[in-house]
Amino acid sequence: MGVDLEASVSAFLEDVASERPTPGGGSVAALAGAMAAGLTSMVCRLTLGKKGYEEVQEEMERLLGESESLRERLQELVGEDAAAYDEVVKAFRSDRSTPEAKEARTQAIQQAMMGAAQVPLETGERCRDLLSVVKLVSERGNVNALSDVGVAAHLSIAGFHSARLNVEVNLASIKDEAFVDRVREELEKVEWEAMQAHADVLLALEMRH
Amino acid sequence: MGVDLEASVSAFLEDVASERPTPGGGSVAALAGAMAAGLTSMVCRLTLGKKGYEEVQEEMERLLGESESLRERLQELVGEDAAAYDEVVKAFRSDRSTPEAKEARTQAIQQAMMGAAQVPLETGERCRDLLSVVKLVSERGNVNALSDVGVAAHLSIAGFHSARLNVEVNLASIKDEAFVDRVREELEKVEWEAMQAHADVLLALEMRH
Repeated sequence: MGVDLEASVSAFLEDVASERPTPGGGSVAALAGAMAAGLTSMVCRLTLGKKGYEEVQEEMERLLGESESLRERLQELVGEDAAAYDEVVKAFRSDRSTPEAKEARTQAIQQAMMGAAQVPLETGERCRDLLSVVKLVSERGNVNALSDVGVAAHLSIAGFHSARLNVEVNLASIKDEAFVDRVREELEKVEWEAMQAHADVLLALEMRH
Repeated sequence: MGVDLEASVSAFLEDVASERPTPGGGSVAALAGAMAAGLTSMVCRLTLGKKGYEEVQEEMERLLGESESLRERLQELVGEDAAAYDEVVKAFRSDRSTPEAKEARTQAIQQAMMGAAQVPLETGERCRDLLSVVKLVSERGNVNALSDVGVAAHLSIAGFHSARLNVEVNLASIKDEAFVDRVREELEKVEWEAMQAHADVLLALEMRH
């Protein structure tokens, strides 16, 4: 299966719509984040070299670098999410003809599910990182591109919420309580930071309107 | 310019990130809606023919049809949004060497801006339509795919909010007050319906968890 970002946008959408479970919600969450990062980069570029924004040039260069790194990572996570899910399916299909095989299968399933929780957790973290870049761009970027900044904010927070659903659905089947607690704690922290930054962006858009 | 959905996903993201203003926030809003529609179709397909869902087969067929129509329309709106923006740029660049040309240019700009407001208005309307499909799927679709339904809901509402920002940025420059009032009224109605359906989906996910 897997996800090929060199395939066309319409082929990707057909793949999402098909009855194959991958690419599914986790991949789409990462792609929403990647689109938000793309818009953020665009607004940085529309601020660089523009009259009236001389004082923020260095900062915009730095923010553009961060936004492009996040876009690259989020694009990778589109495929990694599908791959992690496929590992879970593979583990479920493994041999269970003997008690030893059964035990190994159970362990493989648990291992694969932890992987399938960690990928969307990182997607959520990167959407949170992106929102902190979007916040600065909303405060100092080209005022003519504020609607694009707003779209970046809406898509990043949707990417976070979507990633969170995908973490939680996997956590529900994981028996390692310490792992589950650690992931839940991180998720709550990231959610708070992401929602705070999202609210800050909406405020900046209102103020600079 | 324009947007080619037959180009690769990574080329599309590069285009978004470039300093060219199209594809921008309006196109990305429509694509977020199209991805949400794709996930909705996937969940309908994962419900069709499945044991325990015999009673909802006919309804799922109907919902799949609606979701696929909305996906098709939202995919078209990705390109239409960029084209409408390009018309605004073209109108701004038109001749203004005589008083008559100046007057014609002003009218062409106003006309193009109305077009550039109407496209994201439709994107918002289609995201609202999609949310009403997602709501029914969240209540009766395959319970194993509820996280995908949730992602569809988060991306559709983000698509709506994003589209709204793009309508508003154009309305700000339109002088035809009757047009502006009409669009604002429609936008408020659509927003209420979209947010209501989004809340209903989250409730259904909670109840069927």
